[in-house]
Amino acid sequence: MNISVCHMSFRGFSSLAGIAATKKIVADGTLQQKVFAPYTIYKGKAALSASPTLPTFSKSDLGSLMVARKGVIMLTFFPAIGERKYDWGKKQIFALSATEVGALLNLGPDDSCEFFHDPSMRQSNAGEVRKSLSVKAHSDSSGYFMSLNVVNNVQKTNDRLTVPVTCAEFAVMRTAFSFALPHILGWNRYLDPQQTTINQRSSGNVAHFAESEWDR
Amino acid sequence: MNISVCHMSFRGFSSLAGIAATKKIVADGTLQQKVFAPYTIYKGKAALSASPTLPTFSKSDLGSLMVARKGVIMLTFFPAIGERKYDWGKKQIFALSATEVGALLNLGPDDSCEFFHDPSMRQSNAGEVRKSLSVKAHSDSSGYFMSLNVVNNVQKTNDRLTVPVTCAEFAVMRTAFSFALPHILGWNRYLDPQQTTINQRSSGNVAHFAESEWDR
Amino acid sequence: MNISVCHMSFRGFSSLAGIAATKKIVADGTLQQKVFAPYTIYKGKAALSASPTLPTFSKSDLGSLMVARKGVIMLTFFPAIGERKYDWGKKQIFALSATEVGALLNLGPDDSCEFFHDPSMRQSNAGEVRKSLSVKAHSDSSGYFMSLNVVNNVQKTNDRLTVPVTCAEFAVMRTAFSFALPHILGWNRYLDPQQTTINQRSSGNVAHFAESEWDR
Amino acid sequence: MNISVCHMSFRGFSSLAGIAATKKIVADGTLQQKVFAPYTIYKGKAALSASPTLPTFSKSDLGSLMVARKGVIMLTFFPAIGERKYDWGKKQIFALSATEVGALLNLGPDDSCEFFHDPSMRQSNAGEVRKSLSVKAHSDSSGYFMSLNVVNNVQKTNDRLTVPVTCAEFAVMRTAFSFALPHILGWNRYLDPQQTTINQRSSGNVAHFAESEWDR
Repeated sequence: MNISVCHMSFRGFSSLAGIAATKKIVADGTLQQKVFAPYTIYKGKAALSASPTLPTFSKSDLGSLMVARKGVIMLTFFPAIGERKYDWGKKQIFALSATEVGALLNLGPDDSCEFFHDPSMRQSNAGEVRKSLSVKAHSDSSGYFMSLNVVNNVQKTNDRLTVPVTCAEFAVMRTAFSFALPHILGWNRYLDPQQTTINQRSSGNVAHFAESEWDR
Repeated sequence: MNISVCHMSFRGFSSLAGIAATKKIVADGTLQQKVFAPYTIYKGKAALSASPTLPTFSKSDLGSLMVARKGVIMLTFFPAIGERKYDWGKKQIFALSATEVGALLNLGPDDSCEFFHDPSMRQSNAGEVRKSLSVKAHSDSSGYFMSLNVVNNVQKTNDRLTVPVTCAEFAVMRTAFSFALPHILGWNRYLDPQQTTINQRSSGNVAHFAESEWDR
Repeated sequence: MNISVCHMSFRGFSSLAGIAATKKIVADGTLQQKVFAPYTIYKGKAALSASPTLPTFSKSDLGSLMVARKGVIMLTFFPAIGERKYDWGKKQIFALSATEVGALLNLGPDDSCEFFHDPSMRQSNAGEVRKSLSVKAHSDSSGYFMSLNVVNNVQKTNDRLTVPVTCAEFAVMRTAFSFALPHILGWNRYLDPQQTTINQRSSGNVAHFAESEWDR
Repeated sequence: MNISVCHMSFRGFSSLAGIAATKKIVADGTLQQKVFAPYTIYKGKAALSASPTLPTFSKSDLGSLMVARKGVIMLTFFPAIGERKYDWGKKQIFALSATEVGALLNLGPDDSCEFFHDPSMRQSNAGEVRKSLSVKAHSDSSGYFMSLNVVNNVQKTNDRLTVPVTCAEFAVMRTAFSFALPHILGWNRYLDPQQTTINQRSSGNVAHFAESEWDR
């Protein structure tokens, strides 16, 4: 019988002084309510928060709904400034794409991976800020180190925030990310019951494939 | 070909005399209906019931929705008092946090873990009651022993309730806990279709990331 | 590189002459529509159909919602009576409980399991009909044999219907059963957004656990 | 510590000139909105897009809802015609059935599988077009080659489009396909809350199985 390192981890509380929630009026006039329900891991030197952001859609001239901005899982790192106190103002963010989420879901207990982002990619100021997120397995497979490194070549700053993540905390992220991933892609939009076509006439008992290549 | 120990397990029936269901009026005046649909495992010496509890939210002054109380998976142990009879009045509860649920989801067939709770943590009466939940793999990997130990230093009581859980029953918990975990975090609130922004104007065919670090 | 046996399997079509769909009026007067969307595997000697059945609920005197009848995954076996023709009238059914579904979800590629049901359990005619469902891994781990044996001691009949299930078909069942399991338990009832409590007053930034043992 | 090949992959942008979105009026008069939210992988020689298609239903004379056309996961391959430019007009499609999706969900890191489709199967022009989708693991288990081969014996054409898929991208597909599979089967229709029967009278505390073989 093995004893896995899954004992209850330290749980601190943050002083989130800097949050400014704003209401957003969406196109159809209804009020969209901002939600704060991140999964946050508080550790000694920094904390790590994760929450999903849905894609936005635009209506084409023909009336169809298309993804305008892809959804992400937003990771927010913020440094500790004392016992159970964290400085939200010094936060650094990293927006995981669907494929990067897939890489984390695929990560074995001894695996590691690293993602590189340039917030100004393909713009005139490309290369000014470089971000890298590194996820490294502990040597005893008991969890991972998640580190965000942000190099700002204009402000001449180099921030590194590292949070050790236990196997239990990573399992929460894995489960929550799996839940969120289809929504980040926008696939829930395909699967709304209102998307279902119901024909009034019975078509007999033989089931065909819907909109398949058989239509050609 | 191996024969796994997955045969239909003993299923008893409880005498749930002590349940007092109450209606709760939520802030907007609608009636919230209490639901009882736990997954319950009845064994010889005790029974174990599991059910999810959603987080509660509060509205900030700025109108955003924030988690006020975190959701949990509530485990309830109650002792047998005869053949297929259980004493609900002597129940002991243990509220699994999201990270503790993650530890159970992560548990291998030979792993074990233990969680410690003090219901009065950081209050004047801290330490009066100490609870520990232990999950220990059977030596033949055919399941787990789940034991709740409650030590009450004021009432001088020491209760231990143990339920053997088969691999099949643990698979039910794992599947149901995975389903519930994102809701316990409140992530379903992020992913409501009404949270979706739809722009009336087409933004062309190039998809961007929504609210990403690219905005900076 | 291994070649798994996942090539497109034979897909026949059944003559489902015996289906009698009925409308059911539920308590609140609305019309409940019967749905037929089983996952069906057609093989040479028999076919196997799987579909979920939700639990039913009753309202207690105190207004709370309680599970009255547990949900199941209903398996239906029916024999072939010619090429791509199946006799729905000779069907045999087996209702998988949540824990039996857990056993199938937990089944390894070399594992086997067997469930025994007596439809008249704890009634005067107990033992008249005995059903057993056996799931046996192929010796090369390429799938399972699923066999339903029904012995009727009154009618002196002994029916056995066997369907070979590929790894791909079993993966469909595993995925669909995982999706259905929380609904069969009734856990989706806990997680309806209308179950969410929203307090109008902000409770500050410190998140507590909802309805936890901390309340005691 | 192993380093898995999960670094951020090349992400190009397509010129999707050929999309013609159409509104569809469903039977009850409401407007069904076409959705475009595929998961697309852009690589050097071709791109691969995946999106789910719901089943369609028909109402029987007795009022029950039956699957008329089965749902699928539609894979669309289209060739590159320059740097980050793809020719949507030369696309080839392959509609994965539920069981084929199961085969992909079941695919191990060293496994391979192949599916064969004839869009005119069991029609007079059977055999005119033959499609095969091949999924082959990389020799180092770092991903798969997904190749669609379309042989048109009338037009005397033979198209092959191949997209290398990383482990991270395959994990996205696996997660999204798992999410979509129950909807493709139509099982979400069984599990709508409006399908729930609620009896006004309490049935006591003993839970039975709903519509089980126990009814016989």
